[in-house]
Amino acid sequence: MRTQLAIVGAGPAGLLLSHLLHQSGIESVVLERHSRSYVERRIRAGVIEHAAAELLDRVGVGARMRREGLVHSGINLRFAGRTHRVDFAELVGRTVVVYGQQEVVKDLIAARLQAGGTILFEAEATAIEGLASDRPVVRFRHRGEEQVLACDFVAGCDGFHGIARASIPEQAITVYERVYPYAWLGILAVARPASQELVYAHHERGFALLSMRSPTLSRLYLQCRPDEPLEEWPDERIWDELETRLAAEDFRLERGPILQKGVTAMRSFVCEPMRFGRLFLAGDAAHIVPPTGAKGMNLAIGDVVMLARALVAYYREGREDLLDAYSALCLSRIWKAQHFSWWMTTMLHRDTDTLPFDRKRQLGELEAVTGSRAALTWLAENYTGLSLPPLPERS
Amino acid sequence: MRTQLAIVGAGPAGLLLSHLLHQSGIESVVLERHSRSYVERRIRAGVIEHAAAELLDRVGVGARMRREGLVHSGINLRFAGRTHRVDFAELVGRTVVVYGQQEVVKDLIAARLQAGGTILFEAEATAIEGLASDRPVVRFRHRGEEQVLACDFVAGCDGFHGIARASIPEQAITVYERVYPYAWLGILAVARPASQELVYAHHERGFALLSMRSPTLSRLYLQCRPDEPLEEWPDERIWDELETRLAAEDFRLERGPILQKGVTAMRSFVCEPMRFGRLFLAGDAAHIVPPTGAKGMNLAIGDVVMLARALVAYYREGREDLLDAYSALCLSRIWKAQHFSWWMTTMLHRDTDTLPFDRKRQLGELEAVTGSRAALTWLAENYTGLSLPPLPERS
Repeated sequence: MRTQLAIVGAGPAGLLLSHLLHQSGIESVVLERHSRSYVERRIRAGVIEHAAAELLDRVGVGARMRREGLVHSGINLRFAGRTHRVDFAELVGRTVVVYGQQEVVKDLIAARLQAGGTILFEAEATAIEGLASDRPVVRFRHRGEEQVLACDFVAGCDGFHGIARASIPEQAITVYERVYPYAWLGILAVARPASQELVYAHHERGFALLSMRSPTLSRLYLQCRPDEPLEEWPDERIWDELETRLAAEDFRLERGPILQKGVTAMRSFVCEPMRFGRLFLAGDAAHIVPPTGAKGMNLAIGDVVMLARALVAYYREGREDLLDAYSALCLSRIWKAQHFSWWMTTMLHRDTDTLPFDRKRQLGELEAVTGSRAALTWLAENYTGLSLPPLPERS
Repeated sequence: MRTQLAIVGAGPAGLLLSHLLHQSGIESVVLERHSRSYVERRIRAGVIEHAAAELLDRVGVGARMRREGLVHSGINLRFAGRTHRVDFAELVGRTVVVYGQQEVVKDLIAARLQAGGTILFEAEATAIEGLASDRPVVRFRHRGEEQVLACDFVAGCDGFHGIARASIPEQAITVYERVYPYAWLGILAVARPASQELVYAHHERGFALLSMRSPTLSRLYLQCRPDEPLEEWPDERIWDELETRLAAEDFRLERGPILQKGVTAMRSFVCEPMRFGRLFLAGDAAHIVPPTGAKGMNLAIGDVVMLARALVAYYREGREDLLDAYSALCLSRIWKAQHFSWWMTTMLHRDTDTLPFDRKRQLGELEAVTGSRAALTWLAENYTGLSLPPLPERS
């Protein structure tokens, strides 16, 4: 089997890349380890930045997002019993769309298949070889058979634990990492969200986040220990704790059946450079942000727009300069987003190991930020997202 | 000896408090451990916020500051070889005045003495007693004699190491503290400042600050270890290191004779509450900020304006509510300033103990901040200072 671009991973990064390249006349094959139904149900990020939502529209995969997604023109910061709305629309003239990552995945899969694209599900890449040559290959297992996908380039869109980054010799990359002393205990519950917009709550017992996936589906999180034993959290305890941490005047949390429960680790991670020979990393394969800044899927979208442009320039004009610049251009956005994600995380969480001074300073910070239009504007700019690179020309 | 307010310490806090109270018809005695010439030559902070400079004008001690002080309408942030000007005037319509703290002290001493005020120099307070009663006393040693100053209230304006805070029972206060893993090696040199405005430089070898006291006097700092041995820093090495860290295109550091050389520790410190019975703490006696945010003297000014108002309300109207609110009102500003000082410090210094991730994030932060008008506005708001409480009515 042969293609121009082998894409490992059918998450938002890999699928959008395949879609963008198709629109510019470049062919690709997507290899996905899991089944279609698995990736279409995998609950991950859920906030799409302003420019990313516009991009999904422009490339023809935004229709359902516009129908079913929830447009949010702000978020709420809650601490010391008070709620401060950050009005994105008023501060920076932008909004975000709350729409689950798995829904974006569904839309992209549908678009790729309708256009005759090739996505091989349950096709596990087992080796990526020849990266230093101009004829790399991806070996994979599909329907019990070992197969080989020959290609010009490989896009590693297979997430943090994928094979793509692991295929790069250790000495060829530098890894930057920060592990946080806390995690999120998250639930998905059939319950009307108690707020129309997200509520980020800083409480002395720890951070809590009220989020949602639809007008009837709540997504709620509690800061917990990284090794928090889920069995110690029966549903009632979760609801009680959420109620305590999210408490505010005239606020009543609606309870309902919990469909999912899980603990998510908090990590900051960047791999530099995001390229090795003919392999380009995009999305979580190259970088992880803690979820507090809602940046995960958006950074992946930024990466693949950059990569699609670079590949189009290569195939159309024989230019390699954008491929050479890919990593540095992505990393410039990524480090800013890393800072923002770290900032939101450390401003809102309660670190039990920290100095009492820093806990008081944190409250001073929250007071200062919520009291300053400039600071709120900075937050809104970052939350609703930096601008995206231009799209490649279509065929 | 008896007075209404005993003020311990003739720094900017104690002297301005005495001056403000005098203008409202309340008498005070200032006790200062050191000689007049010592406090008039003691080099400390040198940046006066917009509102603080206006206040010095309004209360009649700003004339020389306006003649000799340097009005700065911005600062420069330098990193990765580039310089980014933060234009205070354009961003927030405010400026700061570079004018040494010892000059403010000179002006205040002159004003107090001219008005017949009592400042006892070389008068060391040895005990503060009766704070729980309404007749506290300050015992002090002056010209070889033990003396007693009886008063209604005591203002502890005697700095971090003074006797005032030490007179409060340990269990009556909570102390919040953060020590930084670095210090500043500072010099005062007869050399034309190489920049008209301050330059805050983040360099891989550490932070450096170019500052000045006059058009012919440079004040320069290098980040160093807290236990940095001064003897290892001959003048040439200091200049060489400053040149390396402050390097930028078209930038030439002028060298000259070094008049002073010293290492300043970096500390964040807050004592809560700032009152015990009839004793009120103000300025460094209650809180210390690392100097990166240029907040030290300005917080002291904010404290004593608040305290003067509270005392005037007490003597004029018998109201104790402002005295009762003094600590909480001050602390609200102080924690915001603590956050700002911590932010400037950690954004600009190089912490050798930190994760490589955080060093890269720091560069991402500097890029993000200097690339965002909103972030620069927030910085400018904080640097030029929050608004001050209103002045008390004059007699």
